Amino acid sequence: MGLEEAQKAVDKWISQYKEGYWPIYEMFARLTEEIGELAREINHRFGHKKKKAIEDKKEIADELGDLIFTICCIANSQRISLRKAFQKTMDKMYKRNGNRFKKK
Amino acid sequence: MGLEEAQKAVDKWISQYKEGYWPIYEMFARLTEEIGELAREINHRFGHKKKKAIEDKKEIADELGDLIFTICCIANSQRISLRKAFQKTMDKMYKRNGNRFKKK
Amino acid sequence: MGLEEAQKAVDKWISQYKEGYWPIYEMFARLTEEIGELAREINHRFGHKKKKAIEDKKEIADELGDLIFTICCIANSQRISLRKAFQKTMDKMYKRNGNRFKKK
Amino acid sequence: MGLEEAQKAVDKWISQYKEGYWPIYEMFARLTEEIGELAREINHRFGHKKKKAIEDKKEIADELGDLIFTICCIANSQRISLRKAFQKTMDKMYKRNGNRFKKK
Repeated sequence: MGLEEAQKAVDKWISQYKEGYWPIYEMFARLTEEIGELAREINHRFGHKKKKAIEDKKEIADELGDLIFTICCIANSQRISLRKAFQKTMDKMYKRNGNRFKKK
Repeated sequence: MGLEEAQKAVDKWISQYKEGYWPIYEMFARLTEEIGELAREINHRFGHKKKKAIEDKKEIADELGDLIFTICCIANSQRISLRKAFQKTMDKMYKRNGNRFKKK
Repeated sequence: MGLEEAQKAVDKWISQYKEGYWPIYEMFARLTEEIGELAREINHRFGHKKKKAIEDKKEIADELGDLIFTICCIANSQRISLRKAFQKTMDKMYKRNGNRFKKK
Repeated sequence: MGLEEAQKAVDKWISQYKEGYWPIYEMFARLTEEIGELAREINHRFGHKKKKAIEDKKEIADELGDLIFTICCIANSQRISLRKAFQKTMDKMYKRNGNRFKKK
């Protein structure tokens, strides 16, 4: 499952429905909802009042899956290639941050 | 570039440095920083005081690339497979939301 | 109810318990949870799939109240005066942004 | 400076300009920008790569002041009383959470 396949899988799911992609601000608000749900799971698993570990680890994964879904929605609606965007980020990391941290 | 390759590319970059992955809460705080940067670009491009369109569209893509990078960091540090997590989200979407919206 | 009284009311409530203020990163994660809950209510009330208006308006208010509570927690734990911080923001707005927008 | 006075001070500032309050989604996006700026300052001050303490403490205060400003904007635009909303949160805390934590 590549970033392009992920975007296509989301587009296929969305394309079933008349509704189509939400307006950009509503997708962004949905994205922050999921960030909030991720925050809750991080506090459950790593906070000073931990819940049991096993189930929670799974839930952090679930929230990350939902985050990827919503990022694909935003990218698709703007005709952005996440593969290219991510590649650009990696190029930037190698160029800009190359000497910021101590190498092994 | 697949989700697994993206995670591996991030791990390769991180592995150059002594520092390794940041503590989970610091990565989460970094994630919210990037959400904030995405919000700024969305307001620049779609808000009532728009900036010029061409450059900004690129910038939304850049922020999404940075978001994917940080999500890979969080996933790697927790040994989470984004491919599996995303697949689980898609399965959930097909099951739960199948009848929520009007089909074409 | 002033900003100082709000901070004192929160401190009085927290002081009942052995636990005290949470670590800063956990309070910050809680803050993003509440931002996510606010996002959900904004989508419910203003999104293209609106719920009924009356109850939802109340809920946006509830989320803002919870936000103020968590901001008071963070401020108290860092011995920050929200009154002074807000005054500084207002001073900045009058100085910096004074000529940015068209006056009436 | 009370919560009502804070809301009035923001309204007075906004009222100078033709523009008025931003659309709700743009104010919400601005709110997440400020959450992101707060995250950056928390990482600067408390992360494993701390910057010097004195200046940063001031900056967390600044971000909290900006947060209060934007929350006042959202509340004003929706005719929400932050004083009442906060009071309701405090009432809820005393009722619901009264027995959740160990009392001193």
